[in-house]
Amino acid sequence: MATSFLKTTPNVFQRHQNPFAFVANSISARTSVPISQKRRSRSFALVSMSATPVETSLVKSPPSSQNTGIPIMVNACTGKMGKAVINAGEAAGLNVVPVSFGCDEESGQTFEIGGKEFLVHGPSDRESALVSALERYPNLIVVDYTVPNAVNDCNSIGAIFNTFSYEGNAELYCKVVAFLAAMEIMAEQFPGAFSGYSLQVLESHQASKVDASGTAKAVISCFNKLGVSFDMDQIKLIRDPRQQLEMVGVPEEHLSGHAFHMYHLTSPDDTVSFEFQHNVCGRSIYAEGTVDAVLFLAKKIEAKDEKRLYNMIDVLREGNMR
Amino acid sequence: MATSFLKTTPNVFQRHQNPFAFVANSISARTSVPISQKRRSRSFALVSMSATPVETSLVKSPPSSQNTGIPIMVNACTGKMGKAVINAGEAAGLNVVPVSFGCDEESGQTFEIGGKEFLVHGPSDRESALVSALERYPNLIVVDYTVPNAVNDCNSIGAIFNTFSYEGNAELYCKVVAFLAAMEIMAEQFPGAFSGYSLQVLESHQASKVDASGTAKAVISCFNKLGVSFDMDQIKLIRDPRQQLEMVGVPEEHLSGHAFHMYHLTSPDDTVSFEFQHNVCGRSIYAEGTVDAVLFLAKKIEAKDEKRLYNMIDVLREGNMR
Repeated sequence: MATSFLKTTPNVFQRHQNPFAFVANSISARTSVPISQKRRSRSFALVSMSATPVETSLVKSPPSSQNTGIPIMVNACTGKMGKAVINAGEAAGLNVVPVSFGCDEESGQTFEIGGKEFLVHGPSDRESALVSALERYPNLIVVDYTVPNAVNDCNSIGAIFNTFSYEGNAELYCKVVAFLAAMEIMAEQFPGAFSGYSLQVLESHQASKVDASGTAKAVISCFNKLGVSFDMDQIKLIRDPRQQLEMVGVPEEHLSGHAFHMYHLTSPDDTVSFEFQHNVCGRSIYAEGTVDAVLFLAKKIEAKDEKRLYNMIDVLREGNMR
Repeated sequence: MATSFLKTTPNVFQRHQNPFAFVANSISARTSVPISQKRRSRSFALVSMSATPVETSLVKSPPSSQNTGIPIMVNACTGKMGKAVINAGEAAGLNVVPVSFGCDEESGQTFEIGGKEFLVHGPSDRESALVSALERYPNLIVVDYTVPNAVNDCNSIGAIFNTFSYEGNAELYCKVVAFLAAMEIMAEQFPGAFSGYSLQVLESHQASKVDASGTAKAVISCFNKLGVSFDMDQIKLIRDPRQQLEMVGVPEEHLSGHAFHMYHLTSPDDTVSFEFQHNVCGRSIYAEGTVDAVLFLAKKIEAKDEKRLYNMIDVLREGNMR
């Protein structure tokens, strides 16, 4: 009865009467990667986002003077996320240094991104390249979107990482984390509050994404704690571009990169409904979130903060930094 | 771009491009009504929900043995909420006692509600009627949906009240409180997290409701804390039954009593959107929430809990009780 605020025409809910659920679990799972100081104790700040785990870290580092001009090194600069972060960083007034870590094939080559030439260092000369960069930019913050091995390489020159694994989902560097955190808190504070409610979950991603959304699973875990019965295999995955265009309303230019999520809760007597949506087109929110994480780390370095381990929740807690 | 998960046809958003905001303020404002023990110290538990303030209280009272059979007295039994609570209480196995407080005009009359006769006591014999009821049902819990004066009358025989004012909004005895609490926590934890985002708020209520929704205002306060600029006069009020039917999707039988709320957040670059809806038809959610509050109070009385002041947040925190 109270299914939707806006009357919808080809209403997916009317066709798929699955149960619903709120969840809040995985973002609080944190582990620390052990420190390895094989060769030197020189340290730097690193923002790392790889498929899994997602990490943000701060290592002993000299303070920067202000937000603008903060030197950052963006690894995998030829990748989509690398490019997005370079552009977002430049737009935010950061100093994106013209070196980057890449794969063997790209090693020694330069690539133009946002009107700037970037020299790519392959796996073999990463450490020496990093040492050189740190000598030139002592308060360097490294942004890394490559596989976890890149993080391990960084470990070798002394780093402490705060890791929170997230089922391979790379959507953590953004405002969605605030929503997830709120769901976790709600689930913790009000266990069983939505007992008897039914849940429907729909998520739409680019056709190349095979698995169900990790974010959806995290939110469903919260709904489960709130008393809602819902199995992960009840998530309705939408991967057909025509359905995405016509039913979900994904803009055509974002069919190849989007993350739309919808959770619909209905009371047992059908008189009450709640609906939550978080819909992302493209990568800019993740790139902007990464810039926020950089500004946060720079601020903490400058303040000589005692704490060395941070995650995106800490970044969001800090409030608006620009 | 990422405006809605479900493609909507007559999309109100496309027509009204107002800014958005999350808020979480008023439900935490609590005051205690002073105790008055003019005539006797006999005590009882009271659940009170009047236009303003909304109150839940526990007064020293003998324990009840179990959830079912808990005696409750529902005041204003001829009113819509009174009837709804009587029906919900009976359905939940509570013992709804056949007496009620009412107005002068109804005093001394009996009314049949849910197949049971209720004798109504007017303002002049409330106190003696309550004393009689308490003698017969020593662990009586009183549900009161009348004006705050009724609560004051109860004060005269010894009661402690936990009051949280809510701008005249009587929608607090339900799951929406959990959503509001989560919004408050999010606003507190992540100040400015949605800075630069634009907000649209639409709310639809029965045509007789003149003012903007107090619930919407509370949620908007949270959005404001999250960095979103939005003034209360930007709330889009929908009171036209035709619009409610065609645009909002309110079921026809609930045009005379519904509370639909929609908040839509959009990122500055239009690539990200969040949407939250809480849509209520009729009064059953409030009646069920009241029964939850009764079960909660009975449980606390039985456990001889030290605490004497509760609100709906406490009830929801307790988890599912049936």
